[in-house]
Amino acid sequence: MTPPALSGALFGVEVVGIAAFALSAIIEAARRRLDAVGVCAVATLAAFGGGTLRDLLLDRRPLFWVQHSELLWMVLGLAVFAMLFLRARHFEPTERAMQWPDAVGMGLFCASGTGLALDYGLPGLVCVVMGVVTAVMGGALRDIVCNEIPRVFTDHRPYALCAFAGGWVVVGAHALALPQWPGLLLGATVATLLRAVGILRDWRIPQWRTED
Amino acid sequence: MTPPALSGALFGVEVVGIAAFALSAIIEAARRRLDAVGVCAVATLAAFGGGTLRDLLLDRRPLFWVQHSELLWMVLGLAVFAMLFLRARHFEPTERAMQWPDAVGMGLFCASGTGLALDYGLPGLVCVVMGVVTAVMGGALRDIVCNEIPRVFTDHRPYALCAFAGGWVVVGAHALALPQWPGLLLGATVATLLRAVGILRDWRIPQWRTED
Amino acid sequence: MTPPALSGALFGVEVVGIAAFALSAIIEAARRRLDAVGVCAVATLAAFGGGTLRDLLLDRRPLFWVQHSELLWMVLGLAVFAMLFLRARHFEPTERAMQWPDAVGMGLFCASGTGLALDYGLPGLVCVVMGVVTAVMGGALRDIVCNEIPRVFTDHRPYALCAFAGGWVVVGAHALALPQWPGLLLGATVATLLRAVGILRDWRIPQWRTED
Repeated sequence: MTPPALSGALFGVEVVGIAAFALSAIIEAARRRLDAVGVCAVATLAAFGGGTLRDLLLDRRPLFWVQHSELLWMVLGLAVFAMLFLRARHFEPTERAMQWPDAVGMGLFCASGTGLALDYGLPGLVCVVMGVVTAVMGGALRDIVCNEIPRVFTDHRPYALCAFAGGWVVVGAHALALPQWPGLLLGATVATLLRAVGILRDWRIPQWRTED
Repeated sequence: MTPPALSGALFGVEVVGIAAFALSAIIEAARRRLDAVGVCAVATLAAFGGGTLRDLLLDRRPLFWVQHSELLWMVLGLAVFAMLFLRARHFEPTERAMQWPDAVGMGLFCASGTGLALDYGLPGLVCVVMGVVTAVMGGALRDIVCNEIPRVFTDHRPYALCAFAGGWVVVGAHALALPQWPGLLLGATVATLLRAVGILRDWRIPQWRTED
Repeated sequence: MTPPALSGALFGVEVVGIAAFALSAIIEAARRRLDAVGVCAVATLAAFGGGTLRDLLLDRRPLFWVQHSELLWMVLGLAVFAMLFLRARHFEPTERAMQWPDAVGMGLFCASGTGLALDYGLPGLVCVVMGVVTAVMGGALRDIVCNEIPRVFTDHRPYALCAFAGGWVVVGAHALALPQWPGLLLGATVATLLRAVGILRDWRIPQWRTED
C-alpha cells in the first residue's frame, strides 16, 4: 500500500524533532567523550531511530531518511560542526543541558508518530503506542550506544508517560475534528511541558512496593 | 500480499501465550520494584515483542496488536490490576514464581510462531526459527528492560532448545497432515514440559570446554 | 514490490561474508565458553543479523535466509562441526584470531549492502548507510549475546569508518559505470584492508576532548 503522503504539518514537526534529538545526542556524546565516529553514529540513531521503528511497524516505505536523504546530511553536518565548534569554545556539557532538547524532541516525535498513525485510520490506543515508540526509541538507542541504561527505564521521573499523555491529546484533537497543525502542536507542547515540569519539580512515578 | 487469515486455533494459542508472558513480566517487574510505567511497559513488551518481530520478519501486517487492539487494553488492564491487587495482598514474588508462566508462554509462542510460518509455505527450519524467535524475544525484551542480561543467554538450562524441539513437533505434525489444533497443542506441550522438567531437574547444556 | 533479483556477484559476496562472520562468532563464543546453544545462536545472529536488518529497512522479502534456508543449515553445521573439532584439537582462541574473519566479513557485507541498495536506485549516502548497517549489525549482535559492549562502540580503532569508506568506493564504481563484480570486490578490499591496517598499526579515531 502506498503510504499516505506526509502533510506539511507532519513534515515540519518531524524535522524539528530530528534536529532536537540530534542536538541532545551530540551533547550526550560530548559528555561521554565519544570519538568522532561515535558522535555521528549517536546523532543519527537518536534522530532517526524512533521514526524508523515506527515506519517498520506501520510498514511505511520509503523510510523518512531514505526519502529525505538531505536530512541525513543535515544531521551528519550538525555533528561535525558541533565537534569543531564546541571543542574550540571549551564547552562543558552537563546532564541538564541535554535534557531540554531531549524533552522538545520527545514532545514533537510523540505528536508526529501519533498523527502519522492516525492517517492510517488505526484505533486510538494503537496510535498513541506508535507515538510513544517514536518518542522513546531514539533516546533509548542514544543511551545504549553511550553505554548507559536507557534513561527512560531508570530515571523514575515521567518520560514515556508524558509521551503517552501528549499522544492522547493528538488523538483527542483528531476526534474533535480540529485541523492537524494545532492538534500536533498542542500534543507536542503538553508532552514537552509535562516533562519539563517533571524535571524541575522532581516528580516521581510511584514505585511498586510489596512491603509496608 | 494479504497475510493468510489467522485460524481460530492460532488465534487462541496466541492469546493465551500473550496472557502468560504478560503475567511472567508483571511478576518480574514486581521483583525488580519497577515503577508503574515500567510495569506496563514490560508487560506490553513481553506480551507482544516476540510476535511483532516475527510479523516484521514475515512481512505480516497489520501486526497482531494493531489488528486486535483490545488485547493491548487487556495487557495494560492486567498490569494495573496486578499492581493494585498484589500490593494489597503483600505478595512476595520469587524467581521461581515467574518461571512457570514464562514456560507456558514460551511453549505457546513457539507453537503459534511455527504454525503461522507454516501457513506461508516456508521450509521447515525457517518455520522453526520463526517459532524460536517468537518464543524467545518477548522474554529477552522483558529481561533487558528489567536491567538484566536476557535469561535465555545466561541461564545454562535449556530454553531456546525447548522452543526448537517444540517447533519441530509442530512441523512434524503438519507434515503428517494432522489437523492444526492437535499439532499446535502437542508442540506447545512438548516445549513447556521440556522446560519445566529442565528447571526441576536442573538440566544443563554442555558448555564449550577447550582445556582438559 | 518484487525485489530486484540478486545478481551472481551479490550472492557470492553475501555467502562468503556470512561464512566469515559465522567463523568470527564461533571463535568469540569459544573464548567466552558459551554453551552449545549459545554457539549456534551467536553464529546465526552474526551471520544473518546485519543482512536481515538491511532487508527490513529496504522492505526486501523474502529475507535472504528465508529464501536460501540451506545457508541456515550451513551455519548451524559449521557451529556444530567447530564445537566437535576445536574441542578435540585443544584450540585456544585469542581475541586476535577472531578479528581477521571479522574484518573480512565486515568488508564483504558493506560491499553487498551498498550494492543491494544501489539496485533500488537510492541516493548514494543512503546506500552507504545500508552498507554500514549490514556490516556493523551482525558483529554488534554477536557481542551483545556474548555479554559484551559492542566492539564497534568501544574499540577506538576505525570500524564503522572502514565500512563507510568501502561503501563509498562501491558507490563510486557504480557512478563510473564499472561492472558490478570489480566494484564490489574493490569496496570490500578497501574496507577490509583499512580495518586490518588499523588493527596492526593501532590507528585511533580522535576523541572529543573538551579540556586542554
